[in-house]
Amino acid sequence: MTRRVLHPGALASGDTYKLLIGLVVPRPIGWIGSVDASGHRNLAPFSFFNVVAAHPPTVMFSPLYSRGSRKDTLANVEETGEFTVNVVSVELVERMNVTSGRYPSDVDEFELAGVTSQAATRVRAPLVSEAPAGLECVVSRLVPVGDPPSGSTVVMGEVVAFHIREEILDGTRIDQVGLDAVGRMGGPSYTRTRDQFEMQRPV
Amino acid sequence: MTRRVLHPGALASGDTYKLLIGLVVPRPIGWIGSVDASGHRNLAPFSFFNVVAAHPPTVMFSPLYSRGSRKDTLANVEETGEFTVNVVSVELVERMNVTSGRYPSDVDEFELAGVTSQAATRVRAPLVSEAPAGLECVVSRLVPVGDPPSGSTVVMGEVVAFHIREEILDGTRIDQVGLDAVGRMGGPSYTRTRDQFEMQRPV
Repeated sequence: MTRRVLHPGALASGDTYKLLIGLVVPRPIGWIGSVDASGHRNLAPFSFFNVVAAHPPTVMFSPLYSRGSRKDTLANVEETGEFTVNVVSVELVERMNVTSGRYPSDVDEFELAGVTSQAATRVRAPLVSEAPAGLECVVSRLVPVGDPPSGSTVVMGEVVAFHIREEILDGTRIDQVGLDAVGRMGGPSYTRTRDQFEMQRPV
Repeated sequence: MTRRVLHPGALASGDTYKLLIGLVVPRPIGWIGSVDASGHRNLAPFSFFNVVAAHPPTVMFSPLYSRGSRKDTLANVEETGEFTVNVVSVELVERMNVTSGRYPSDVDEFELAGVTSQAATRVRAPLVSEAPAGLECVVSRLVPVGDPPSGSTVVMGEVVAFHIREEILDGTRIDQVGLDAVGRMGGPSYTRTRDQFEMQRPV
């Protein structure tokens, strides 16, 4: 089975992006809640998102520059040093998609998408009440990658609180079927996570 | 639907880890190929892995310290500044799992798992020939998070070449069903990505 070799230097930037999002899959979705210094709320999904350490518990997300400027989420996180991550289940996926649009910074995506904001315990950024789980995070590091208009800033945040729906929590085990998380694929595609199997590590 | 609130300070480190891997799902799997300075090959899977920028095309993975020491992959990447990322399809998942064990650094996981190493074009780290796609990467930044024995080092790498099986490549679009990628879930669970749907961004 032949493989074609492509070098990014010979590709348009948009083509490189399409290859990356089509090959690095399935990506978890961090639905990021934030506020600006005046308290205006923002909610937006990011799939360049993952865990990076367990101790201290740390997650990262990477908001690409959008048409040359910082997204509201990055501006808020830089201003306030705080954010929440909300888990997107199948039930919430259309409301999540509403918040993926480009809106002026004074639009409250919680209202727009019809989700309920819930006060966090340790940060001012709001949680999505309807989500099966949410994380409260304090920014621990900002790592610029590349330059505007096409680079990004990797936001790393320490998790200072977990909010987890009782029905999916068994001790510290999360019911992976009950969570019903959605993953991001290439182009306009998403995947459900209901088609699971298990494997034990060999040693 | 009530949610329980848990603060990491009140949890054992292993419990925090279990919550994170159970909530940040589905995670893409980067099956990382590397060599040490003497040319000994290593292959191991990491699910704290994602894209972080498109221009320059950049991916990251985060190898946690394992029982207080650097994993071979991190040692190799620090020594040589290079690695490959190989996509894990359903067909390859058992061979990937073989490479997730803890082996002495002189064990060649390509041989152990019965996969074929293929020379890359721009880096010395080998590719997995059987994978539907592979990326050649040059380390652009190492970001320590926390301290040994329980922290990590986030490895960021610029993608310098893509290898993509002809059958799944249509221009720069990757056939998301043909790729048949596997995602990592919490505990011993994995998910297939065959249960897909599409949504268009609102604006």
